[in-house]
Amino acid sequence: MAPQYAPSLRSRLPPLLLFLQTGFIVIYAFYTDIEGYVKERDGNTFSNFYPEFQDVNVMVILGFGFLWTFLVRYGFSGAGFNLLVAVVATQCAVILNGIDSWYYRGKIRINLRSLVDAEMCAASALISIGAVLGKTNPVQLVLMALLEVSGFVLNEWLLHTLLKVRPLKDMRLHIFGAFFGLMLTWILHRDGSKQQFEKEKFGRKTGLFSMLGSIFLWMFWPSFNSVLVDAHTPGRKLDAVCSTYLALAVSAVTAAALSVLSSPKGKVNLIHMHSCILAGGVAVGVSISGVHQPWEAMAIGFTAAVVSTIGFRYLKNHMLRAFQCHDTCAILSTHGLPGLLGWLAQLLLQIRDCDNHTMAIRFAVVHICTVLFTISLSVAMGIITGLLLKWNIWRPSQDRKCFDDQAFWEFPRLAVRK
Amino acid sequence: MAPQYAPSLRSRLPPLLLFLQTGFIVIYAFYTDIEGYVKERDGNTFSNFYPEFQDVNVMVILGFGFLWTFLVRYGFSGAGFNLLVAVVATQCAVILNGIDSWYYRGKIRINLRSLVDAEMCAASALISIGAVLGKTNPVQLVLMALLEVSGFVLNEWLLHTLLKVRPLKDMRLHIFGAFFGLMLTWILHRDGSKQQFEKEKFGRKTGLFSMLGSIFLWMFWPSFNSVLVDAHTPGRKLDAVCSTYLALAVSAVTAAALSVLSSPKGKVNLIHMHSCILAGGVAVGVSISGVHQPWEAMAIGFTAAVVSTIGFRYLKNHMLRAFQCHDTCAILSTHGLPGLLGWLAQLLLQIRDCDNHTMAIRFAVVHICTVLFTISLSVAMGIITGLLLKWNIWRPSQDRKCFDDQAFWEFPRLAVRK
Amino acid sequence: MAPQYAPSLRSRLPPLLLFLQTGFIVIYAFYTDIEGYVKERDGNTFSNFYPEFQDVNVMVILGFGFLWTFLVRYGFSGAGFNLLVAVVATQCAVILNGIDSWYYRGKIRINLRSLVDAEMCAASALISIGAVLGKTNPVQLVLMALLEVSGFVLNEWLLHTLLKVRPLKDMRLHIFGAFFGLMLTWILHRDGSKQQFEKEKFGRKTGLFSMLGSIFLWMFWPSFNSVLVDAHTPGRKLDAVCSTYLALAVSAVTAAALSVLSSPKGKVNLIHMHSCILAGGVAVGVSISGVHQPWEAMAIGFTAAVVSTIGFRYLKNHMLRAFQCHDTCAILSTHGLPGLLGWLAQLLLQIRDCDNHTMAIRFAVVHICTVLFTISLSVAMGIITGLLLKWNIWRPSQDRKCFDDQAFWEFPRLAVRK
Repeated sequence: MAPQYAPSLRSRLPPLLLFLQTGFIVIYAFYTDIEGYVKERDGNTFSNFYPEFQDVNVMVILGFGFLWTFLVRYGFSGAGFNLLVAVVATQCAVILNGIDSWYYRGKIRINLRSLVDAEMCAASALISIGAVLGKTNPVQLVLMALLEVSGFVLNEWLLHTLLKVRPLKDMRLHIFGAFFGLMLTWILHRDGSKQQFEKEKFGRKTGLFSMLGSIFLWMFWPSFNSVLVDAHTPGRKLDAVCSTYLALAVSAVTAAALSVLSSPKGKVNLIHMHSCILAGGVAVGVSISGVHQPWEAMAIGFTAAVVSTIGFRYLKNHMLRAFQCHDTCAILSTHGLPGLLGWLAQLLLQIRDCDNHTMAIRFAVVHICTVLFTISLSVAMGIITGLLLKWNIWRPSQDRKCFDDQAFWEFPRLAVRK
Repeated sequence: MAPQYAPSLRSRLPPLLLFLQTGFIVIYAFYTDIEGYVKERDGNTFSNFYPEFQDVNVMVILGFGFLWTFLVRYGFSGAGFNLLVAVVATQCAVILNGIDSWYYRGKIRINLRSLVDAEMCAASALISIGAVLGKTNPVQLVLMALLEVSGFVLNEWLLHTLLKVRPLKDMRLHIFGAFFGLMLTWILHRDGSKQQFEKEKFGRKTGLFSMLGSIFLWMFWPSFNSVLVDAHTPGRKLDAVCSTYLALAVSAVTAAALSVLSSPKGKVNLIHMHSCILAGGVAVGVSISGVHQPWEAMAIGFTAAVVSTIGFRYLKNHMLRAFQCHDTCAILSTHGLPGLLGWLAQLLLQIRDCDNHTMAIRFAVVHICTVLFTISLSVAMGIITGLLLKWNIWRPSQDRKCFDDQAFWEFPRLAVRK
Repeated sequence: MAPQYAPSLRSRLPPLLLFLQTGFIVIYAFYTDIEGYVKERDGNTFSNFYPEFQDVNVMVILGFGFLWTFLVRYGFSGAGFNLLVAVVATQCAVILNGIDSWYYRGKIRINLRSLVDAEMCAASALISIGAVLGKTNPVQLVLMALLEVSGFVLNEWLLHTLLKVRPLKDMRLHIFGAFFGLMLTWILHRDGSKQQFEKEKFGRKTGLFSMLGSIFLWMFWPSFNSVLVDAHTPGRKLDAVCSTYLALAVSAVTAAALSVLSSPKGKVNLIHMHSCILAGGVAVGVSISGVHQPWEAMAIGFTAAVVSTIGFRYLKNHMLRAFQCHDTCAILSTHGLPGLLGWLAQLLLQIRDCDNHTMAIRFAVVHICTVLFTISLSVAMGIITGLLLKWNIWRPSQDRKCFDDQAFWEFPRLAVRK
């Protein structure tokens, strides 16, 4: 009877979480303070910035969490572990993002902006989780998130130090997260994924929960893309919101059309509706600083949805067979490819806008170096993290307990006399 | 075996959507630009207006979408097609609303306000969909939305040109949408609706999803009613929010009371709780410019909920038997009657506030003409749309595939080996 | 066959609701007006305050409502009756809160702030309902809410009159609500609760709805704690938001760790994840005026989550066996104990910040008197309310109809011919 049960995490998860949490509290006690003073001149007064902070919060906690409830027997884990990982990653990212400020001023300042910055880093970790969802236990997820966030912040610091560029977080977030996750799942390859996992399917009801998460991401994506745009030029912020909204609208229509077109029976695939409607938001977010006309945003949204839906339909199985890379939520098609597409669009748009050739070439070189560097670092960090997590000490679930809530969650009703 | 399946939409839906989407992108490329400049003097700065835009967005995409998941086997279609129709209608409405500005300035300006305006038009189309939900396929829904939005914008233009009035969108939205939908479903009458459709019922779980959509509509309705109120007089906006909130609160209590009172077993009907709690918001929205005291809003909310609940309980079946008009979501009781009630309330309130008889009579004549004109146009457009959609070329579902997700959605788990 | 059915509420609920509602409309007609004038100097302009009002609204209507859908057969009642009770309690609280202003000015002013104040009172009633959820009928719930809100407002008035203090609503809300609810459920003790109720268990799908409510509460708790903080000092508001966010993040991690640690099989309990992740928000909300450093908020969040999770695991059954007090949602552990902990934290923090001994002692005496007085009044009101609700005239459900939607909701599908 014993081997039927998933290995207990009682001796692994609580010590890890309590250690991390106590550590964070100690670090926060010595090195942080809350910035009580609000700089009016930034235009980031409380009432201006707080609703945007809440929107990002909703996307990270609710959007990603419920997007991952689509697996029929893995809903609690999808929503619950997402919350756990997001808050651990956010607390960690606040510290890592603030090392600079700690070095110069002795204290890390906590305000709404630093929390939003940290949640963006957490979002990057949550994207990576999409690739290994259902095949890892919470201990592995928490460790992975810590390493992913460290890699992401390291990437920003290296880009700033070596290339003297400081690209928008949006750009690197999707690409870094997607390639990190892909490498991780490639290293953690399991036998069960040769054929599809027994429990990897979605149900009618959980499909609607997932739709809910997806719709929240869709609705608040304009905030996600505009929140880090400089508030000194409010026109830019409005541009970002309208562009993102249009790109998302086009994505939704295109994803539905392509999903029906690529289906032999002419039906819509629910998972495409969940993920590919967001492709436009990803692509436009990456290229936001180059987009100035509505039609540019719409064309990017259109292309991104085409790439994403086609990728989702054909690439996922191909990746599994050819590279033994099992990508649960198809993050390559949802975040990786649209991210690269947005990067390409920005390259073309910025070169078009440049006045002379020298500037255009200089921009192109820096832009290409940035993305190559980001991909290399994310692949390297992904492989290292994968090797670390392969260690049996973390008590990974058996193949037959994958994609199953019962491995991690108490179901009290079983204890009830009927 | 073949006739068991619903007709495939592969040759209909993708071409339509791709054609529309490419057309929209081309039109946007030549005739629109994003308005980067924010007029401070309007009081509509980015941070003031963006949260309200998001609230309307949440209502249109999430609220209506999930409100329509109550049918036990039609949840995916309810939420998914709602998103599809909403984004197509919004893109179309931005163009149609901007024809005026295109004529005078050569360009349509896209900003948060024009997007909100367009989403209001989309909301009107979504209300109409409520009447034919489950009995039409997505091709028909998209075509219907395009025609409905065109009719709605035409109505506004004609009212402005002929009667020199420009009533708030709120007023015409509910009435136009409801009568358009009723005519449409009357023309599209199906044999299956003589007795109740086999699959037209709601389940325990989908009932909660629907409750979620309903609660989102309920919570953000104050934004819906206040967003188009002139921001120059912020006191009016506050009035609108408080009045709407009070009317909604009264509606919720009254709907519950009436639902129990009209039930032989003394039980609450869930569908009443979904729809009738919103009646107060509809009625107060229509009469918002006449309401100045809390009790007026509350009395309107009370009456609207009584009319709506009684209408829901007795009118729906009567409409079906007497007029062969099958109204899936009872939009007559939810939007039509409360809208007319609000119109009547505004008439009475404005006449009371008028200083002399001449003005009162002039106002009454214009007000009555406005509503008669709106109803006539919506009935005419509904009949034309119905006749167009009756055409077999759109491949309508068979009666036994009505209210069933399987006609339109791939269920991947069926392909999984157990 | 007759005794199988729950007693019909047709002769009880509608008269009560219609009487209350008509009464409210009459009172509002004579004694209230909407405050159209917005005081710019307060910093509470419409666009500043409206998003926060909406956040509180979302928490009260959606958050609490869906948090209570976790019972497998009681989802409709959880969400529906919550809406009903919340709007009745809010309307009542607007009047009771305004008696002062009515006395001096003849009119109660209704604006966004008075609605938020009233919703806070309603939240206090909703917390109490957590203790008796599933064991009472809507008539009892509405009466209970009216008495609870009256007691809560009376408590504020007495504290202000006798002790000359006006503590933040946050503080008394959780403590008053929890002890009121506990007394109520103790008086209303039922035989069915000796062993667990037949239907008191949670299901997989309803668990996710409940997770949704819990996540909404979690996300918007910073608004809940900051909305009543004085807007004259915007730095304080920012402090409150960041502190609450950090405390909630720490709570989530700690609750997960403790839940696994206290489970013999090393699994997470979903109900702990629902309720205990909020403990940090409760505790920090109570002590918000004393918290100035991030680590203080985090330490309070940590302790609150430990107390709450341990209390949830062991205290609920103990309470039932030792005191015959059946606490459906374990509000003692979720609101009562974290509230008291926050009270203690504030006492210690404020004493530390005091300059001299006299002030510290005076503060401590007043602080201790406040909490003792609040608890006494809530216990007294709870007992009185319990005795009143025990009366058979309210037609309480039988034990076997407890925790069952069928007692109160029509299920139309049963009436459908298959």
